[in-house]
Amino acid sequence: MPAFSSQLFSHPALGSSSAAVLAPGMSLSAGSSPLHSPKITPHTSPAPRRRSHTPNPNPNAASYLVPTSASTPLADPGAAAHIIQKETVGGTTYFYTDNTPAPMAGMVFPPYHIYPPTAPHVAYMQPKANAPSFFMADELRQELINRHLITMAQIDQSENPGVPAEVDSYHSLFPLEPLPPPNRLQKTSNFSYITSCYKAVNSKDDLPYCLRRIHGFRLLNTKCMMLVDMWKKIQHSNSVTLREVFTTKAFGDHSLVFSYDFHAGAETMFTRHFNDPTADSYFTKRKWAGQPDPPPPRQHAGLLPESLIWAYIVQLSSALRTIHTAGLACRVMDPSKILITGKTRLRVNCVGVFDVLTFDSSQANPLALMAQYQQADLISLGKVVLALACNSLAGIQRENLQKAMELVSINYSSDLKNLILYLLTEQSRLRSVNDIMPMIGARFYTQLDASQMRNDVIEEDLAKEVQNGRLFRLLAKLGTINERPEFQKDPTWSETGDRYLLKLFRDHLFHQVTDAGTPWIDLSHIVSCLNKLDAGVPEKISLVSRDEKSILVVTYSDLKRCFDSTFQELLAAANGQL
Amino acid sequence: MPAFSSQLFSHPALGSSSAAVLAPGMSLSAGSSPLHSPKITPHTSPAPRRRSHTPNPNPNAASYLVPTSASTPLADPGAAAHIIQKETVGGTTYFYTDNTPAPMAGMVFPPYHIYPPTAPHVAYMQPKANAPSFFMADELRQELINRHLITMAQIDQSENPGVPAEVDSYHSLFPLEPLPPPNRLQKTSNFSYITSCYKAVNSKDDLPYCLRRIHGFRLLNTKCMMLVDMWKKIQHSNSVTLREVFTTKAFGDHSLVFSYDFHAGAETMFTRHFNDPTADSYFTKRKWAGQPDPPPPRQHAGLLPESLIWAYIVQLSSALRTIHTAGLACRVMDPSKILITGKTRLRVNCVGVFDVLTFDSSQANPLALMAQYQQADLISLGKVVLALACNSLAGIQRENLQKAMELVSINYSSDLKNLILYLLTEQSRLRSVNDIMPMIGARFYTQLDASQMRNDVIEEDLAKEVQNGRLFRLLAKLGTINERPEFQKDPTWSETGDRYLLKLFRDHLFHQVTDAGTPWIDLSHIVSCLNKLDAGVPEKISLVSRDEKSILVVTYSDLKRCFDSTFQELLAAANGQL
Repeated sequence: MPAFSSQLFSHPALGSSSAAVLAPGMSLSAGSSPLHSPKITPHTSPAPRRRSHTPNPNPNAASYLVPTSASTPLADPGAAAHIIQKETVGGTTYFYTDNTPAPMAGMVFPPYHIYPPTAPHVAYMQPKANAPSFFMADELRQELINRHLITMAQIDQSENPGVPAEVDSYHSLFPLEPLPPPNRLQKTSNFSYITSCYKAVNSKDDLPYCLRRIHGFRLLNTKCMMLVDMWKKIQHSNSVTLREVFTTKAFGDHSLVFSYDFHAGAETMFTRHFNDPTADSYFTKRKWAGQPDPPPPRQHAGLLPESLIWAYIVQLSSALRTIHTAGLACRVMDPSKILITGKTRLRVNCVGVFDVLTFDSSQANPLALMAQYQQADLISLGKVVLALACNSLAGIQRENLQKAMELVSINYSSDLKNLILYLLTEQSRLRSVNDIMPMIGARFYTQLDASQMRNDVIEEDLAKEVQNGRLFRLLAKLGTINERPEFQKDPTWSETGDRYLLKLFRDHLFHQVTDAGTPWIDLSHIVSCLNKLDAGVPEKISLVSRDEKSILVVTYSDLKRCFDSTFQELLAAANGQL
Repeated sequence: MPAFSSQLFSHPALGSSSAAVLAPGMSLSAGSSPLHSPKITPHTSPAPRRRSHTPNPNPNAASYLVPTSASTPLADPGAAAHIIQKETVGGTTYFYTDNTPAPMAGMVFPPYHIYPPTAPHVAYMQPKANAPSFFMADELRQELINRHLITMAQIDQSENPGVPAEVDSYHSLFPLEPLPPPNRLQKTSNFSYITSCYKAVNSKDDLPYCLRRIHGFRLLNTKCMMLVDMWKKIQHSNSVTLREVFTTKAFGDHSLVFSYDFHAGAETMFTRHFNDPTADSYFTKRKWAGQPDPPPPRQHAGLLPESLIWAYIVQLSSALRTIHTAGLACRVMDPSKILITGKTRLRVNCVGVFDVLTFDSSQANPLALMAQYQQADLISLGKVVLALACNSLAGIQRENLQKAMELVSINYSSDLKNLILYLLTEQSRLRSVNDIMPMIGARFYTQLDASQMRNDVIEEDLAKEVQNGRLFRLLAKLGTINERPEFQKDPTWSETGDRYLLKLFRDHLFHQVTDAGTPWIDLSHIVSCLNKLDAGVPEKISLVSRDEKSILVVTYSDLKRCFDSTFQELLAAANGQL
């Protein structure tokens, strides 16, 4: 092996510039990269992120430092200078450790081809019995791709003549519900009007929104816009933000349109939980004379886990608290207007619609009725919770209420029962969302713990992906240079000058073979070389011509210069600047 | 343009298989891809994710459906079949909307080259005054790269002879603290022992851990391992999990080693908040005779925002609650043992150390003292909170207590003052972490909202990256095939058969030129073609030979077959199977 293959280049900022040779058996890398062009045999071919039970199998690997400009220093030098070791403060014995790594001779940085391992707290994360579940990495990716698909889905305009090409500043309308049949049924289920719902892109910011159109509505008075302005300020992780309300004739009638944030892949609580008619059977089954009621269903026998119901309660009460604090009322606390994304994330949808549709301009104070509506919100919350606990909307019918509460008593905690009773029975004083906090109690901790664990999982997943975009762009750029048939009428362009070096580098990257002449396919080698190219490290590399008659020894920093200037040349030509 | 360039292939699962031609002006794509090989001119060259105020500018673009096998259906067909529209349930008028998009003729799927836009709820996210702050996307990436760097950092063994190569099943030890000078100062600050701290990789799972070594400690009795086993079961998002405890002679003495999850880039609360000696000045400044005290500092004038302190209280009390519920006591509730990652995430570190070091084997019940230690935990929590509120450890000295509480009264809410008083003053009955929940009150909602917003931000960021790894691997595979000098002793391998098609595809991908012969460089074209290759769509593509004498018309699904089988051939040869 040539000498440079086991050199270490220390980080100049860390005070050491001497090259050190690795002690045998103590190599710093879990993989090797062959340092020669074709026909020189690589020694090992480890896959990236290989899990090995033998530490440091390869004594020939080299580790390189991130150059100063590209690296984030390990420790803030200011902080390191402030290391103070106090023994006692006043009467209190105070012990502490400073975890900032001190500048150290011989500290080396990651070999380029290694992806970070999963942190143990994520690798060994156990699901918790009482916490709401969430997507782990793979499911989340699937979900993200699905959301992407839904966000980008469009309709063929020619087959949907009823959908206008543009509505106000929105285009690319995509119906999210079947176009409404003009019957009373649909009307009463949506604010007593015929409504329809579209995904659309706002041309002002090119972002996707959800438009809810109220058919045949003439807005006679714009005073209600004061309430719309209040709604536009509500930003809460459990509420869908209303962005604007406008009138339009684009649909061929007088329509009123509410524009909300679009949450791709969301489904309603109704669809998720109340779409199974068999779940109602406990309440709807006909009794035979003399026969006792069937025993109520038990949890895990068709009923929702209590932890899920509490996860929902915390989120819905959180949204209500923010809305009520802002002086507004939700008025749409209903399974058909609550969106669920992922496994358990809720968002109250369609806020503000009733405030506009039922606006009474004869009222001196448009907020006069809010206190009353807020009380109604809390009763509605109670109904949602009871329906969830019964796993059936039949449970909230007046005639089933006793049976429903019996079912709750048998299957769920007294906290849950008390919460429902507080919300649904007569109260001597006004209800407040603050009153249910003690009933939630330590379950707040459970929710927060779950949310933080979820953060950890997504962060780890992002850490794995964060490098890939950069690597992809490097290969794409190299592709535009290598083997280009001609450039500026020069058919030999890609075979000469800097481009020849990059061609040989391409061979080095992709066309390695073993002693026996068989292909050596190793993604970690490709990643490693690309990272060194991107960093422009001083490491030398021997590029062998295809006829094996000449060997060019260059540094990665030379290659980076060739790469950058050649690509700039291509770009300049593409932009007509050459 | 050839006819296939504007065909739409409808999704068979959605009930339409007829090809529809786009109406002019209503193209479904924001970018075009030239459908020919070199010398055929592309019409437009949009960058991916281009922000345009003109909807659908390009009538020549084609949109293709994801083939059934690769796509996630928009709607669960079962759910769609269950669409039920009830009007009233019992006495309650029940309105709902089903958000499942119905099967629709002419629904089309995303053009392959478009990345998803940011969802509006993340694009327009506003920081909230009372909520803990968190990293937004760009900062988070920086942080993740920094963590990667720290996770992979290693030492040069030859310059650190004091660090053993292996300790039990761990290797690649990296000191996280300056190696300890053997003085009493360091000793008292760390459990009354000399300790040192290393990052190390466990060869059993190749994951990084943090080892805390207690120097010169002989474990005489293994009964304490019962407590260690209890600690190993504690998994909480605000606590560092203890993985194992073992004795070793690898350091040349009798050492006891605690192995914890490694949280890269964490700093201690001491380093973050109590490392500035000037902050102590309010408590330590000498009074001149007759001169009144200086006015206490005001919030935003050197004091921490109350929202941050509550964010910490919620997290620390959450950890304590889990630990106490498990029958254990934390015993390390101290700024030097609390780790902070990112902006506000806390984790209690070094749990279990005292339980082992001070284990009294003469005690019949090793848990006998836990209740007492739990009380001490709550007092320690009070001290941490008071120190945070004073922004100085001097505030918790006995002689400064009155001054410190005055500072809290002036600057912070009565809830915070009451919480500190509850934890630090005599109580007639045992303190419990449950008692502080009402003082936290609605701030639980704030924390949860912030955590969920943070989830949204990271998810959006991950959604952008999730495709890149796949695209990178595609280009890397293509690179191993194209221009390979020889294979199985055949120097023409890469120029013949399937490989010739892939060579022409490479030209199509990278070497497009405009009418004028200038390079056409467009990442969206590359992404789009690679995605079509990966999906194997039925779209046809004309590949032109370099001499322009022959044109090969193939589908992407043909190309995919060539690509897969050729790469398999290479792999088989690499594995010695050919």
